[in-house]
Amino acid sequence: MPKKKGAIGIFDSGVGGLTVVKALEEQLPNEKFCYLADSLNLPYGNKSASDLEEICIENINFLIQNPLKALIIACNTASAHAYESLKKRFNIPIFDVITPSVDEALKRTQTKKIAVLATESTIASNLYEKLILTRMPDAEVTSIACPLLVSVVEENMLTHQLSQMLIRQYLAPLEEADVDVVILGCTHYPLLEKTIKEELPEHVEIIDSSKCSVLNLKEYLEKNALLEKSKPGSDNLFFVSGSTDLFNKIGSSLLNQKVNSVKR
Amino acid sequence: MPKKKGAIGIFDSGVGGLTVVKALEEQLPNEKFCYLADSLNLPYGNKSASDLEEICIENINFLIQNPLKALIIACNTASAHAYESLKKRFNIPIFDVITPSVDEALKRTQTKKIAVLATESTIASNLYEKLILTRMPDAEVTSIACPLLVSVVEENMLTHQLSQMLIRQYLAPLEEADVDVVILGCTHYPLLEKTIKEELPEHVEIIDSSKCSVLNLKEYLEKNALLEKSKPGSDNLFFVSGSTDLFNKIGSSLLNQKVNSVKR
Repeated sequence: MPKKKGAIGIFDSGVGGLTVVKALEEQLPNEKFCYLADSLNLPYGNKSASDLEEICIENINFLIQNPLKALIIACNTASAHAYESLKKRFNIPIFDVITPSVDEALKRTQTKKIAVLATESTIASNLYEKLILTRMPDAEVTSIACPLLVSVVEENMLTHQLSQMLIRQYLAPLEEADVDVVILGCTHYPLLEKTIKEELPEHVEIIDSSKCSVLNLKEYLEKNALLEKSKPGSDNLFFVSGSTDLFNKIGSSLLNQKVNSVKR
Repeated sequence: MPKKKGAIGIFDSGVGGLTVVKALEEQLPNEKFCYLADSLNLPYGNKSASDLEEICIENINFLIQNPLKALIIACNTASAHAYESLKKRFNIPIFDVITPSVDEALKRTQTKKIAVLATESTIASNLYEKLILTRMPDAEVTSIACPLLVSVVEENMLTHQLSQMLIRQYLAPLEEADVDVVILGCTHYPLLEKTIKEELPEHVEIIDSSKCSVLNLKEYLEKNALLEKSKPGSDNLFFVSGSTDLFNKIGSSLLNQKVNSVKR
């Protein structure tokens, strides 16, 4: 695989990937990134594996029109269903958001009781559970599908009382499961982290799949001497396949910059 | 406008238009229909007016490849933002779902206190309120945006306890408003009618925009001698722009036939 200069490519189904961009900004401030929010195909959570793969291929083909040195699939659902085949298909280092959060969860847990919150489709893929149990066969995994939480974020209801109500219901099974680590297995969920945290016992650690994947990428860039030494000379690129309004709004409030996205 | 033979064209953003198809089956059993579920562009509720118009034009251009004698925009959000311009653009009788439900609500209300449940975007368009107040200036309109209910339906959570919880919250303002008529101003909502009914006082009448629009179309077909006299010789056509799974599932359980949709 060629080591090359260029931006970090990122795509997600909507504003979820912005949590990856935020982590990139914090961890890799000298890198330039190029982000496609594929809101036209939102939600990814109820699409078939083959549809998802097709969508991912189209997104990556769009992003690699820019010079890229690496690419993050900033979506757990797409990572769960298409990561392996995409890695083989494209001649660029591709990173997922699932493997790094599993690694982090296994480092953090003391009780070996781990919860995963994700979309219906990610949970149905069983990938989190499989990866956890392969590395820690005596772990207990509580998988919770939270199908409405992507909509809560995409409707910008981040602090709405209905969101709290929904989250409380989704987390109800954790009262008995007694986990000490909860993986936010969807890149939309960190935008709801405050509310999720409020509904969990204080000792429970939250693993943010967006942050973990960026730390994993950072490690790769360091090892391969691909880190940029100075600030990028040009602006980051934001593309949106559907409506741009919500993206610009959440983007500008989440990131340390005004987000002006371009309709793809 | 030419009077011609042909099917009834219908489109919506997802499974919502199926409630219109169901009403068509009941009211116009001899008509053939041709339905496009544009799930690729789901949800319509958070798209801009110009994006919506563009999407509608594309959908209609697709549907009129079949001979059609009339077309229903089976989506309140699209009706609210694009109906007037679409009517002018296409040389085919086009019907919306909003005007007929307003007419019906005004016939039914005794107290002149009317509630409208709809997507964020339909409520923001203010069209329901405007149409009601134009025809009945002393009416009191309570408009409630229910942004998550389309997702509830599209995630097939029709009888999930979370849906009931959400609906209860959305309807809370009605305790004080004391309305006697509630318009379901989104074609997805009739799929939740049972739960909505349970959360309302018994005397409150529910107006289903899907049924009203079909009765309105029936009246037009009768007046213009366009009604079919015998059963259609060929099957109805179902097209889906995105995933077909959920559509076939809800379609087959809602309608009196097995739904085999074709991916557009």
